[in-house]
Amino acid sequence: MRGVIMHAPGDVRVEERERPAVVEPTDAVIRVTAACICGSDLWPYRGAEPVDGPMPMGHEYVGVVEEIGAEVRTIQVGDFVVGSFFASDNTCEICRAGYQSRCVHAVLMGQIGTQAEFARIPLADGTLVATATHPTAEQVPGLLAASDVLGTGWFAAVAAEAGPGKTVAVVGDGAVGLLGVLAARELGATSIITMSRHADRQALARRYGATAVVEERGDDGVARIKELTGGLGAHSVIEAVGTQESMMQAIRATRPGGHVGYVGVAHDVSLPGEELFFSGVHLHGGPAPVRRFLPELIDLVMKGGIDPGAVFDLTLPLDEAAEGYRAMDQRRATKVLLTP
Amino acid sequence: MRGVIMHAPGDVRVEERERPAVVEPTDAVIRVTAACICGSDLWPYRGAEPVDGPMPMGHEYVGVVEEIGAEVRTIQVGDFVVGSFFASDNTCEICRAGYQSRCVHAVLMGQIGTQAEFARIPLADGTLVATATHPTAEQVPGLLAASDVLGTGWFAAVAAEAGPGKTVAVVGDGAVGLLGVLAARELGATSIITMSRHADRQALARRYGATAVVEERGDDGVARIKELTGGLGAHSVIEAVGTQESMMQAIRATRPGGHVGYVGVAHDVSLPGEELFFSGVHLHGGPAPVRRFLPELIDLVMKGGIDPGAVFDLTLPLDEAAEGYRAMDQRRATKVLLTP
Repeated sequence: MRGVIMHAPGDVRVEERERPAVVEPTDAVIRVTAACICGSDLWPYRGAEPVDGPMPMGHEYVGVVEEIGAEVRTIQVGDFVVGSFFASDNTCEICRAGYQSRCVHAVLMGQIGTQAEFARIPLADGTLVATATHPTAEQVPGLLAASDVLGTGWFAAVAAEAGPGKTVAVVGDGAVGLLGVLAARELGATSIITMSRHADRQALARRYGATAVVEERGDDGVARIKELTGGLGAHSVIEAVGTQESMMQAIRATRPGGHVGYVGVAHDVSLPGEELFFSGVHLHGGPAPVRRFLPELIDLVMKGGIDPGAVFDLTLPLDEAAEGYRAMDQRRATKVLLTP
Repeated sequence: MRGVIMHAPGDVRVEERERPAVVEPTDAVIRVTAACICGSDLWPYRGAEPVDGPMPMGHEYVGVVEEIGAEVRTIQVGDFVVGSFFASDNTCEICRAGYQSRCVHAVLMGQIGTQAEFARIPLADGTLVATATHPTAEQVPGLLAASDVLGTGWFAAVAAEAGPGKTVAVVGDGAVGLLGVLAARELGATSIITMSRHADRQALARRYGATAVVEERGDDGVARIKELTGGLGAHSVIEAVGTQESMMQAIRATRPGGHVGYVGVAHDVSLPGEELFFSGVHLHGGPAPVRRFLPELIDLVMKGGIDPGAVFDLTLPLDEAAEGYRAMDQRRATKVLLTP
């Protein structure tokens, strides 16, 4: 089968890979209907994370089940399924508490590489959620978004305790930040401030529910958030970048007792203890337990109540994945959908 | 009047100070019935915080109202009152959300110095809670504890979401850590692990509800907590020290999705963003909004349901404050009560 391999920073190729098969009796193999390129794939692409030899790429996926192991009970061949970037048993104590991304048996899907024609999904019963009916072509991008960026933005909004009566600020205008705006709106937030300096992303943020735009960054951005919130700061701040500047911007833009939900994968971040202590904020985040939210998100997408698929502004055949990486790296695209 | 002044690290004297009077119409002046020495007073005493000229000391207090300003409505002359280490209006948006320590009009009582015969209390209506009747001598230490260390331990337990079904670990066996144990028990925690290597403090922790003791620190302490929690870590961890080691011990001892409540005043702490991100814990803390809990804590103390005053293992007249500082510095005393 064909699949994406990163050989070195900036060097992404679509090559022939061995077609996956069931290995463990709890596995399923799916034919990938759609995969995509994640903002986190850009870290190694840009050399900010090491590339230790050829790496299969991709951890977002929706598809149709081709084969199941002998112990798979709830997923059947022919099902259309959505999973997330961590395979999880969904039965351990950590999963039951809603932290499937830290399942005691978690498998990182990035190791498997879903930017490919087929993918092996470990712990299929726990990992995959089948749709009631096969989706239309228009519904596929939304389901793919649910698999990672929507689930991550949703978790960030939940971690930030977005809800009625709350003012939510969103640091980061990539797909996760934009879908954090959508999640905050769905959770009932009263005001949503997007921090963005790109007109196209501002427009999508407004479509998703943003009520104000702040173009300033860093201390100036914090000052603007304070101005918009009676000098107090936002109740809830979603952090969807992962840099020192974005984390401090998020913490400083939050009022005492408020909540920061941070989902940008941290890179070279160090939080000053004294400032954090006196900030009085709640801090919660990490790799989103997308599986917790999948049934609800799939339902919302299938009913047409939300359109998270709009974050995909470039669709390419799998064989043109390298162009997709370039487009995202150069910010010509927010999020690229790949069709094997 | 007599009051404690710190002139330099290790140099604490009881001297004649001007007797305070009402300055703002929202002030009250109290005759201090009991004050105490806080673990945080030891930071400047030990030279870990600067002493910029002579500093009045003390921020914990209970006493009887001597005088009130023209705009004080809910507090009357003759009331026995308990306050906390931040004066707060208790009406601003931040106070109403339960973060009175970050009131928009907050005044740090440490600037006023309550280790003295009298103290001016700003924002008396918001800051002070009057007891229904004057307490007995036996109840005074418990009320004084409520004013700071109990309120702080309680906030830490609430921030760590201690409750039924939860295993709570407590890092730090000073007065705040010990009262964090008591708070966790009162909040219904199922198991409470105190991290302590001092026999007397272990004994008090057990009296307050600890069900297990871990003597190891750092990585070894974390490993022991994991052993005691099925390899997962505690649901809730109270951090009551404020060092890099204690913060990392707290974060690492917490299971993914669990909660760290941290109240040790951070000194030279820097949290590694990557590790925090992948830990998946909730982090909340800071200067405790003791005022939020005072009515409930005063009620518990007056009814005799809890005995937080047992953390005071040395009582001295105000004039012997210097000996009190020495005793706490040398760990001969956990917590010193001063009687003006």
